[in-house]
Amino acid sequence: MDHVADRLTERLRRVRALHQRSVRRREGRFLVEGPQGAREAVRHAAPAVREVLLTPGAATRYPEIAGFERVQLVTEEVSAALSADSQGVLAVVDAAAVATDEGALAGARLVAVLARVTDPGNAGAVIRAADAAGADAVVLTAGSVELLNPKVVRSTAGSLFHLPVLTGADAAASVAAVRAAGLQVLAADGRGRWDLHALDGAGAPDLARPTAWLFGTEAQGLSADERALADATVRVPVHGLAESLNLATAATVCLYESARVQRA
Amino acid sequence: MDHVADRLTERLRRVRALHQRSVRRREGRFLVEGPQGAREAVRHAAPAVREVLLTPGAATRYPEIAGFERVQLVTEEVSAALSADSQGVLAVVDAAAVATDEGALAGARLVAVLARVTDPGNAGAVIRAADAAGADAVVLTAGSVELLNPKVVRSTAGSLFHLPVLTGADAAASVAAVRAAGLQVLAADGRGRWDLHALDGAGAPDLARPTAWLFGTEAQGLSADERALADATVRVPVHGLAESLNLATAATVCLYESARVQRA
Repeated sequence: MDHVADRLTERLRRVRALHQRSVRRREGRFLVEGPQGAREAVRHAAPAVREVLLTPGAATRYPEIAGFERVQLVTEEVSAALSADSQGVLAVVDAAAVATDEGALAGARLVAVLARVTDPGNAGAVIRAADAAGADAVVLTAGSVELLNPKVVRSTAGSLFHLPVLTGADAAASVAAVRAAGLQVLAADGRGRWDLHALDGAGAPDLARPTAWLFGTEAQGLSADERALADATVRVPVHGLAESLNLATAATVCLYESARVQRA
Repeated sequence: MDHVADRLTERLRRVRALHQRSVRRREGRFLVEGPQGAREAVRHAAPAVREVLLTPGAATRYPEIAGFERVQLVTEEVSAALSADSQGVLAVVDAAAVATDEGALAGARLVAVLARVTDPGNAGAVIRAADAAGADAVVLTAGSVELLNPKVVRSTAGSLFHLPVLTGADAAASVAAVRAAGLQVLAADGRGRWDLHALDGAGAPDLARPTAWLFGTEAQGLSADERALADATVRVPVHGLAESLNLATAATVCLYESARVQRA
């Protein structure tokens, strides 16, 4: 019995170590905290889910997760020690579950490119919004937050398992890749040349065309070099006294406006 | 000198106590943490700003705040003890700075009504998005998070000082008030009758009309009783595999679509 207990302790130690980036890279695995993300992992990436650690209470609340074939029951205390944000549900998933192949851009009609986005909550929220708007892929450029950071994963609410997210290329290479796939590139910028809701002047970009949106950081926006990569710069109109939009809000408005026009 | 130091200590103790709701209610004051919110308070509600507590570093970084007439310099240590989220800038503001008068609804063309929204970050994000979309007012129904909760205030990024936010009435009374002001009432609901982007069938609501949007909680959405208060239920289309939108995303899409159509 002690031998079994020791083996479990060692396994749990290794799960907990996945909070560290270096361990995630070495092991090629990451954590999915919380029922929403774990459910989508089990539903859309089951072969890549190594195991799901569940408290008895969570197993009762989430039968669709408890029915998965590799479940380890753990006490509330152990679950809390493994993650403060799991609500009793913690999945260990192979990095391969997240499609990051450049081939994902072939035939794409709507793509979000995030340039050097460092806030995990923002990155995750944009991935979730892109999924909802029906985007075919998201690109996180080099210099962005690590995609498999637990807070990014949690903020996507499972959307990470719904659409490919490409990482590692800088903004110039990312823009070249989406352009090679036939998409126009629009930079979302607070001081952009065109108003998103008044794209009817001569030379205005046509949102019906396949489009990659380029978004910058919330604090600084896009650099001049990044803006210059785009075919046009477009601003989300700000009607009230707000000085700016947060990144997730701006991305939501742009992506949904593209979806509306492309699907009209 | 000791007398002066004692007085400052007592003042700081009272500032710190404003993290407690009971103290905010008793004193009729609240905290605004961080440079963005404090700047908007000074800019749009200066008479109601009792004081701004600034570190020397923040005073250098934010001259537009440091120039305010009631600034108290504090050390980094004191600032950190007063708030973990202030970035060296903390304003103490009278509750009266936030306009909550029902008269604010007269002539309104776009209003967001949040029914029992309890997450402070969500409530603040919707207030910020409503400001950007040019909404005339926001209503937080009874049972929602306290508007002057420091996290709500911080999440609004200053938008709290840009538009009136009405509180205290339940959903039925709030809907009655916006309807009395001449607005149609649309409930945003994931299973709504109408697709926001296909409002062209017979009987479809006309977004060009003055509109109040009714939003529910992220977890449960609107109750059946709340949906029944509306003239129509409208869903934001979800094109990808995402199961739902978070509240701030759904509100952003609805409010910006109203702004687009109303201003076309």
